[in-house]
Amino acid sequence: MDSPKGSADQEDLAQLNAQLAELNERLETHLELLRLDQQAGGQVQRKLLPAHRQTINGVSCDYWLQPALYLSGDFLDFQRFDDRFTLFYFADVAGNGASSAFVTVLLKLLFSRWLSEWDATQAESMPARWLAQLNRELLDTGIGKHATLFVGVIDRRTRELHYSLGAQLPKALLVSEGAVLELPGEGMPVGLFVDAEYPRLTYRLPPNFRLWLCSDGILDCVPGATLDLRLKEIERRVQASPSLKGLCAGLTYKLPQEMDAEGGENWELSDDLTIMVLSGFTDDHE
Amino acid sequence: MDSPKGSADQEDLAQLNAQLAELNERLETHLELLRLDQQAGGQVQRKLLPAHRQTINGVSCDYWLQPALYLSGDFLDFQRFDDRFTLFYFADVAGNGASSAFVTVLLKLLFSRWLSEWDATQAESMPARWLAQLNRELLDTGIGKHATLFVGVIDRRTRELHYSLGAQLPKALLVSEGAVLELPGEGMPVGLFVDAEYPRLTYRLPPNFRLWLCSDGILDCVPGATLDLRLKEIERRVQASPSLKGLCAGLTYKLPQEMDAEGGENWELSDDLTIMVLSGFTDDHE
Repeated sequence: MDSPKGSADQEDLAQLNAQLAELNERLETHLELLRLDQQAGGQVQRKLLPAHRQTINGVSCDYWLQPALYLSGDFLDFQRFDDRFTLFYFADVAGNGASSAFVTVLLKLLFSRWLSEWDATQAESMPARWLAQLNRELLDTGIGKHATLFVGVIDRRTRELHYSLGAQLPKALLVSEGAVLELPGEGMPVGLFVDAEYPRLTYRLPPNFRLWLCSDGILDCVPGATLDLRLKEIERRVQASPSLKGLCAGLTYKLPQEMDAEGGENWELSDDLTIMVLSGFTDDHE
Repeated sequence: MDSPKGSADQEDLAQLNAQLAELNERLETHLELLRLDQQAGGQVQRKLLPAHRQTINGVSCDYWLQPALYLSGDFLDFQRFDDRFTLFYFADVAGNGASSAFVTVLLKLLFSRWLSEWDATQAESMPARWLAQLNRELLDTGIGKHATLFVGVIDRRTRELHYSLGAQLPKALLVSEGAVLELPGEGMPVGLFVDAEYPRLTYRLPPNFRLWLCSDGILDCVPGATLDLRLKEIERRVQASPSLKGLCAGLTYKLPQEMDAEGGENWELSDDLTIMVLSGFTDDHE
C-alpha cells in the first residue's frame, strides 16, 4: 500500500508546482519589462542608422547589423555631403549591450556635427581630424568606453577614398576584378589615449569595387583554429560573395534564430555582428 | 481505490514540475543576461553624474537619483567653470529606461562641450543659448526623444542665478528664510520644435538659500487628489526639509525596496525619480 505516502508526495508536488508556477509568472513579468525596455532602446538605435541599400554619388551602401542582445555596440553611418563627397564610418564599441550602445549615440551626434562642419578643401585630412576630435570628446565624457573605427570620405570626382582608422579588425577589404586586398593603415582605438593621432590615408578606388567592413563579431562565425586562419577565411568568403546576402548566408550556421518568446534557447551570438558593404561607380555615368 | 489514478496524477505532476523547473532556469538565465547588461549600462550612466555632496564656489550640490529600472531618463550635472561661475542642469527625458538614457549621454557630451566653449562675458544669455543649441542637436540626431530641462549659471561675484528652462514640472523651488517660491519662467521642451527659443532669466539668490529641483516622478510619491494639490504638497515638504535626506525620507512610502534577486515584487516606481538641491553662500567667506 503506497497510497498514503503517494498522496503525501502528491500534495508536496502540487504545492511545489504552484510555487514554481508563481515564480515563473514573476520571472516572466520581470523579463518582459526588461525586454520591452531594451526593445524600445533598440528601436531608437535603429532609427539612427542610415537607410538600407541606398546609393549616393554613384556608391551604393548596404549593411547587416545583428546585436548580441537588443542593443548594439556596432554602429555605422553613410551620408551625402554634396554631389561630390560621401562620408561614412563603421564603428565597433568595446563590449556590447546598453553601455556600448550609449557610445553609438554619441557617434551619431558627432557625425551629424562633422557633416555640418565639413570642409571640402581639406577632404584628405578630415577623417583623421574627426577621429582625433572624437577621441578627445569620448575621453572628456568620462564614459570609460573605447571603440575601433573606420572613417571614410569618397570623392566622386577623383574616385579617391580618403580614410583614417583606429585598431580595426578585421581590416577593410577591397574587392575588385576578382582580387581582394586589405586597405593599408593602422591606428589607435578611439577613447583610450589622450592626444592619440590618426593616419591620413588615401586610396584610389578601382572601377566596380566592393569595400567590405566587418565587426570582429564575424570572427566567431567562421571556422578556423587560429585568428589568422579565420581572417583568411573571411577574405576568401568576401572575395567569393557578389552580395551582402551571399556573405551573410554563409555565416548563418552559428547565428541565432529569431529569439523565441521564452528566450534563453537562442542566445548564441556572443558579440554584435555587423557587415557593411560599399560598391561603386559601375552605374555612374557622370 | 484511487491509487492507480493517484499515481498517474503524480507522474503528470512530476513531469509538469520538471518542465516548470526547466523553464524557470531558462527564464532566470535570460533575465540574468538582460539584468547584467542593464546594470553595466547603469554603471556607465552613474559615472557620468557629478560627485555627491560637493561644494563649488560657495554653493553645495547634492542629489538623489532613483531609476524606475536600471537606466534613468533623469540626469543632472554641476560643474565649476572658474572661481566665479558654476554651471549646472537638471533634465528629465520623456519616458524612462534605455531609450531615454541614450539622451542623457548626449546631454553629458554637450554639457562638456558647453563648459569648454563657455563665454563669461555673456553669462546671462548662455543658458538660453545652450538650450536652443541642444534643441537643434537633439532634433538633428533624429533620436525622436524630448526632454524638460532647467539650466543654470551661478555667478559667485554678483550672487545671481542666470537660468533658462524648458517645460519643467515641478518648477524649481527656492527656499530662503523659511519661505518658498517657484522660480518664474516658462519654456518649450527640448527636442520637439525646430527653432524653439528659450527664456533668458536672472534671479538674485538670497543668503542661505536652498534651490530644489525635482523630476516629475516625485508626483507619484506624494499624496493629493489633483496635480495642484500634489505640487502644493511638494512645496510644503520642500519648505520643511532642512536636507535632501529629510525630503527623501518622507517619500519612501511608495518607493521600492532594494530589488530582490528574483525581481518582480518590488517594481513599484513607475517613473524615474530625481531630486537635486543646491544650497549656498552660508559658508562663503570670500
